[in-house]
Amino acid sequence: MNPNPLRDPRDRRLPRIAGPCSVVMFGVTGDLARKKLIPAIYDLANRGLLPPGFGLVGFARRDWGDGTFATLLKKAAKAGARTEWSETVWKQLAAGIRFVPGQFDDDDAWEELAKTLTKLDERQGTGGNHAFYLSIPPGLFPTVVSKIDQHGLAKPGEGWRRVVVEKPFGHDLESAKELNHLIGNVFDAESVFRIDHYLGKETVQNILALRFANQMFEPVWNANYVDHVQITMAEDIGIGSRAGYYDAIGAARDVIQNHLLQLLALVAMEEPVAFDASSLRAEKQKVLRSVRLPDDLDKHTARAQYVEGWAGGQPVVGYRGEEGIDDSSLTETYAALRLDIHTRRWAGVPFYLRTGKRLGRRVTEVAVVFKKAPHLPFENIDVTELGHNALVMRIQPDEGVTMRFGAKVPGTTMEIRDVNMDFVYGGSFVESSPEAYERLILDVLLGDPPLFPQHREVELSWEILDPVMDHWARKRTIDTYEAGTWGPKSADDMLARDGRVWRRP
Amino acid sequence: MNPNPLRDPRDRRLPRIAGPCSVVMFGVTGDLARKKLIPAIYDLANRGLLPPGFGLVGFARRDWGDGTFATLLKKAAKAGARTEWSETVWKQLAAGIRFVPGQFDDDDAWEELAKTLTKLDERQGTGGNHAFYLSIPPGLFPTVVSKIDQHGLAKPGEGWRRVVVEKPFGHDLESAKELNHLIGNVFDAESVFRIDHYLGKETVQNILALRFANQMFEPVWNANYVDHVQITMAEDIGIGSRAGYYDAIGAARDVIQNHLLQLLALVAMEEPVAFDASSLRAEKQKVLRSVRLPDDLDKHTARAQYVEGWAGGQPVVGYRGEEGIDDSSLTETYAALRLDIHTRRWAGVPFYLRTGKRLGRRVTEVAVVFKKAPHLPFENIDVTELGHNALVMRIQPDEGVTMRFGAKVPGTTMEIRDVNMDFVYGGSFVESSPEAYERLILDVLLGDPPLFPQHREVELSWEILDPVMDHWARKRTIDTYEAGTWGPKSADDMLARDGRVWRRP
Repeated sequence: MNPNPLRDPRDRRLPRIAGPCSVVMFGVTGDLARKKLIPAIYDLANRGLLPPGFGLVGFARRDWGDGTFATLLKKAAKAGARTEWSETVWKQLAAGIRFVPGQFDDDDAWEELAKTLTKLDERQGTGGNHAFYLSIPPGLFPTVVSKIDQHGLAKPGEGWRRVVVEKPFGHDLESAKELNHLIGNVFDAESVFRIDHYLGKETVQNILALRFANQMFEPVWNANYVDHVQITMAEDIGIGSRAGYYDAIGAARDVIQNHLLQLLALVAMEEPVAFDASSLRAEKQKVLRSVRLPDDLDKHTARAQYVEGWAGGQPVVGYRGEEGIDDSSLTETYAALRLDIHTRRWAGVPFYLRTGKRLGRRVTEVAVVFKKAPHLPFENIDVTELGHNALVMRIQPDEGVTMRFGAKVPGTTMEIRDVNMDFVYGGSFVESSPEAYERLILDVLLGDPPLFPQHREVELSWEILDPVMDHWARKRTIDTYEAGTWGPKSADDMLARDGRVWRRP
Repeated sequence: MNPNPLRDPRDRRLPRIAGPCSVVMFGVTGDLARKKLIPAIYDLANRGLLPPGFGLVGFARRDWGDGTFATLLKKAAKAGARTEWSETVWKQLAAGIRFVPGQFDDDDAWEELAKTLTKLDERQGTGGNHAFYLSIPPGLFPTVVSKIDQHGLAKPGEGWRRVVVEKPFGHDLESAKELNHLIGNVFDAESVFRIDHYLGKETVQNILALRFANQMFEPVWNANYVDHVQITMAEDIGIGSRAGYYDAIGAARDVIQNHLLQLLALVAMEEPVAFDASSLRAEKQKVLRSVRLPDDLDKHTARAQYVEGWAGGQPVVGYRGEEGIDDSSLTETYAALRLDIHTRRWAGVPFYLRTGKRLGRRVTEVAVVFKKAPHLPFENIDVTELGHNALVMRIQPDEGVTMRFGAKVPGTTMEIRDVNMDFVYGGSFVESSPEAYERLILDVLLGDPPLFPQHREVELSWEILDPVMDHWARKRTIDTYEAGTWGPKSADDMLARDGRVWRRP
């Protein structure tokens, strides 16, 4: 059945168009909504992927009317849109924009919200389908979720009800369980969409295509051929205006618990039975359950804080000098750790994860580093510059795949040196890559859950990270690294002890 | 031991410099000498790889003195040199240039040649080392080789004596054996250098580096993962001024017997014990001995002649319309055949070889085409544009490696399409690639034989090809293809019967 008679059924690209629905945004005045969510909604509309019956409702403590709100959203959409600007598209979208003023604990405001949604169903044709997008600090979750429940907004009725949750999904296993429990009491599991925006990135999804749609890679994708795996998310920026949030969280909770462990799961998992949510989640959970921390956490983890240095040719302050950060803060801005996966496929192959602020440059990549060739039949011939083969999946920027291998140096008898072979995602497809949030918001509206981590994955990730956080919390000091460098000496030492080095991406 | 105290021993690139010697060229007035050999000798000199004691002697039926000859060589060197022109280098080289006028069967001229070489040894310090370069039609071989012998020039004495032979190495097994016998009577096996200039190409040697210096490729380099291999040498040009030579030979003898079977051997062979001549030859011979022709040669070979069509935007005549070609000629300008290799590694993996004149464009490549992934876990999801993975080694032009694999199309749920990942040889190394003849002439002067096919390889290649040539010779007709296209329908049918298609390079 063709979901939309207006589209050519032979056009196989994204034949997925959302049905009638409205999205209620909590935290619509925040950075994420302005920079990412609103532009993504506009881009979806502009690509023809939103239905005519679409509503967008803001709920916030502001004294705005629908018109003021719509004007603000237009400004944000225009500034952040990836696709061309179209007044026609905007006008159609604006017809469904509403604003409900009020505190999150104000029952009258909630009643007003309920009425607004009902009216939207009637006038805009949103069909009784409502998604609640919680782009708010975790402290406000209990209030908002219980009010949704209390005012009957979570009850499916004729349409569906879904909730979208942005990270952090708790700050340790216990709080994550509480949060899952809280949400699970109001929404059933299939209606909860936890956003890890990394999973919306094309090149992350391409990891699965690369592994399971090809014949060349899977045969060497195991401990027989792989030496180790490095998963890196490096940022060149500091903490910006997020001092309060960041200082309570730190690098490991902010990035490793979610993004990096999800990447690890995708790289390490077995082939799923099918490309659907439950099959994918089952395989990811198997990997996460097989992860083991090293016994000696001092030797196999590293954490540090940046001190003053350079970024983009400018001198920058150290972490403790950032506005809003206490000068005795022990929060890590760099975290690295070794994990082992106790499966037949990966036994003996360490996975090294690292993330940090104010590093050499912004880059996210997964590097599968192969063992050296077991024997080189080139006697008396120079192979000193020959390293390990590597398959590097670049997530951002310059999305693509790089393969590192040895080639003969021209003009020599048989000197061999490492070279790179590149595939650039942007260069190979006419289609430009949608933003992660476009994909994910569309998936929410379609009720298509494969790319959203399930509560058990979140809990398993905390089970992995909690002992590390506890171990670090018992320390009174923290290592340092100069801003603009590639992290602390302790992280280099950590790999050196295993006879390895971090890639310089 | 550092072979040259003037070179930095830490400089590992080409620490190989020829010792004192002279080269006697037969056929020095021909195209090959003018376009390739003389420029290559100049380039070697300019790179500092020839010794001060170097002599270059021409022997031909021309009424020239040393001076006239040197002037002609200078013109050829200047026109064809890859490296910058240096008068200083040329003057040093010119000091060793001599010319001996005479017929190849004129004993007085041979005595003159012998004297000239002795004088060169004395005055130029060429040390009694002499290489005889036979760039002459095979019909002249017996005369020249026996005169070399008769006048005592092949006897090593204090220095070495070597002979360099250009293809064709016979035109069938019998004539090849005769030729080998003739040369073997005068020179010992280690002193005979058969030039297959393809083996001097950097990217051909890189096949060995790629296979044996890396960990990623060898595990999938076998019948478990490879579907088939395609080896192509296509030319866009016609036969030029070589009508007489070409019409007696044809595409299969001209290209398949030597270049393509050598490429097949390098791609298919087992790891050699070492990178030396006898180890490499042993492995190449094992492959050639394991090659089997299909039973039904009509179904698994194709031959054809080009008819008029287009080349480079210009109308061009057909083969029978070329000057010097009889209009009833049955010589093939296109040849394709399927070979099977009866080894554990390759059983069931066909190797398809093809070559032709006046094809779509000039390209030589080896494509290892992998099986499709055995299972795709992407249900209800579009993979229709997904083909076979392939690793393509491009020999010329645009030397390099291309890997073809499936990647996710951006903006789709999980549509997967084939993309290319490229490594460009010229782009990755600062060093520009030496011409094949530079490498090979230097190897001759150094007595370094790994890149030269040995007499047994030549004979094994004819053993493979002879039944095909006999089969074709029994036919009274030949297929045709339009100039500028990719060959005859019969060649496409040949692959279609196996459920495969030729790559369009």
